[in-house]
Amino acid sequence: MPKISRKGINMPESPIRKLVPYAEEAHKQGKIVYYLNIGQPDIKTPTIALDAVKVHSLDILAYSRSEGSEDYRRKIAKYYERNSIHVTHNDIIVTTGGSEALLFAFGSIMDEDDEIIIPEPFYANYNGFSTASGVNVVPVISKIEDNFALPPIEEFEKLITPKTKAILICNPGNPTGYLYSKEEIKKLTSIVKKHDLFLIADEVYREFVYDGISHYSILQEPGLENHAIVIDSVSKRYSMCGARIGYLVSKNKEVIKTALKFAQARLSPPTLAQIASEAALETPQSYFDDVIEEYVKRRNILIEELEKIPGVKVAKPNGAFYCIAELPVKNSDDFARWLLESFDYQNNTIMVAPAAGFYSTPGVGKNQIRIAYVLNEESLRIAVKILAEALKAYKD
Amino acid sequence: MPKISRKGINMPESPIRKLVPYAEEAHKQGKIVYYLNIGQPDIKTPTIALDAVKVHSLDILAYSRSEGSEDYRRKIAKYYERNSIHVTHNDIIVTTGGSEALLFAFGSIMDEDDEIIIPEPFYANYNGFSTASGVNVVPVISKIEDNFALPPIEEFEKLITPKTKAILICNPGNPTGYLYSKEEIKKLTSIVKKHDLFLIADEVYREFVYDGISHYSILQEPGLENHAIVIDSVSKRYSMCGARIGYLVSKNKEVIKTALKFAQARLSPPTLAQIASEAALETPQSYFDDVIEEYVKRRNILIEELEKIPGVKVAKPNGAFYCIAELPVKNSDDFARWLLESFDYQNNTIMVAPAAGFYSTPGVGKNQIRIAYVLNEESLRIAVKILAEALKAYKD
Repeated sequence: MPKISRKGINMPESPIRKLVPYAEEAHKQGKIVYYLNIGQPDIKTPTIALDAVKVHSLDILAYSRSEGSEDYRRKIAKYYERNSIHVTHNDIIVTTGGSEALLFAFGSIMDEDDEIIIPEPFYANYNGFSTASGVNVVPVISKIEDNFALPPIEEFEKLITPKTKAILICNPGNPTGYLYSKEEIKKLTSIVKKHDLFLIADEVYREFVYDGISHYSILQEPGLENHAIVIDSVSKRYSMCGARIGYLVSKNKEVIKTALKFAQARLSPPTLAQIASEAALETPQSYFDDVIEEYVKRRNILIEELEKIPGVKVAKPNGAFYCIAELPVKNSDDFARWLLESFDYQNNTIMVAPAAGFYSTPGVGKNQIRIAYVLNEESLRIAVKILAEALKAYKD
Repeated sequence: MPKISRKGINMPESPIRKLVPYAEEAHKQGKIVYYLNIGQPDIKTPTIALDAVKVHSLDILAYSRSEGSEDYRRKIAKYYERNSIHVTHNDIIVTTGGSEALLFAFGSIMDEDDEIIIPEPFYANYNGFSTASGVNVVPVISKIEDNFALPPIEEFEKLITPKTKAILICNPGNPTGYLYSKEEIKKLTSIVKKHDLFLIADEVYREFVYDGISHYSILQEPGLENHAIVIDSVSKRYSMCGARIGYLVSKNKEVIKTALKFAQARLSPPTLAQIASEAALETPQSYFDDVIEEYVKRRNILIEELEKIPGVKVAKPNGAFYCIAELPVKNSDDFARWLLESFDYQNNTIMVAPAAGFYSTPGVGKNQIRIAYVLNEESLRIAVKILAEALKAYKD
């Protein structure tokens, strides 16, 4: 039998998806499972987006331009303008989700065995895209004690080699919920300019920022034009994860020109989803205000309730809709599986994402989990209660 | 300024897209351009598919499963069953177009610097996916004199090295329109089994076969189960190129398990497009009968008219909707550009795809063009007339 590639063998399994069979089994046993593990929000998609595809007048569902339709990109540029980010439609390539934007960015700037520095814990699929692209992740550890703030810039500096091509941040962060300050972006700017590196910022959660703090995009930083590559997506912003529409944004013409060649090879982003996503740009501000209010409420409940549980440590997130909690367990992988297989509280249990999969350094984060607060207030209270009861019962 | 990757520099430009600026300029000059260069059919999408998204009842446009919804995959398996191909839903991963299926296949079976043998001329984007995946295309030339039939199997054998991981065919072929016979598939079977290689068949044009000949899929070949990987797509079958829905199909469990890891990293294929594509499976047979009748008519006109032009040689296609024509010119790149920039016949001109971009061997195919017969009968006749007049006027 012909052999699978080394790359294929090394592709990581999703730390979230690997528990799915156990959740399905729990379901079959009649347990009610509260899902704290996934980034699929329960927030409704704006009706303006959903309705746009209902009234389409297409008679041929044709390819769009590889970079996305010009109309749509002009509207995206206006969206950025409203957010104090000055780009034109020529600086934007529409991609099949933020995922594809990352793949295009990686392919455009890195070759086999090149290195990318990423503060960990980080979005687990960065590992997958790195393996798929043949590049190596060099992690720099950020700490729950610091709320997962940017590690000291000297820690980055120590890791830079001739193979280092980029630093990647997620801002605000999945899985940490940490929002980088303007000062932290300026520190990153100085290091990428000093060493002539790219700075990739995954800003898909840009609008999910709380407590009156503003998001500072790397595209707003003067002098960073040739270094900055932003990954963006409609998935979370409009709760339309299934659209699979994202963008790669850069003022660096060579990056855009190169990413466009990757885009042309795959012909076009999905046409129906572009119709929905273009319409979504007209979503009224009240929608976002309501969503932010809802997430702040949930976050406050979650953090408050988690802090009541003995032995649980939690970082307070200022953005996105995740938080990392440290539990009084040795191995959160085992604990997460046990929750589904062997535990119930009044026939309820929870599914959480073990955090080890969000780290690249082996052994780190083994007593942590990621919680996505994508459940309504009542469910969230029940879920944390279940966690508290489970920790009382669990022996490792 | 930080540097683009070698991979990014080496990514080929699309041989089709690079003429677009000249076509746009011709357009601005008031010329009418007949497009013979693209694989975007003018055939209408089945209304059943277009209507399905109009009546969706989603209130959250959520992720689907990474491998595509189980319902949809079960229906796809039934589609194959009707086409004498015996697979289950577990042998299918739904992808974002055939493009992504190719990327997943390449990633699952090949590492940096591995080799894949492809009969040329071949679908130009195979070059792009190979570059993006870091693998090397080893071409084996098929000839217009043989109608682009499978080259002698000894020609493949000569090229096999320890780095060879797979042979890739497109059946029926883009850009050749050639339909491989059962005997040719058996020859390929013997060689991939002998050398323990994968055989990838891009069968996206499977249903576009003419003259009463049947398509023989590599999935029908006994004993090839662990070697065969099929790339499929709804793009051409239902004239829904913009959906971006394809499939990777294999009975090899390791291949599916590995490709699924790539699929999980990018979360899910587009949800709206899956709704349209699932509905498209209910397209009545009469739709396909009409489409086939139309393409046969167009092909016959095209070949008949091309053969009347002095110095033009043309391969007669049995499938897909392309043909390769050899022209009495030195360089079809220059000729194609000249057609748009400097020529008109009664204010009309044509855009063709220079064939050199469909070859990997430098210098081969320079006097050939690919013609897509995706125009109606009348436009096709005009377009060939323009070509004939242009060849009279052209000096190189």
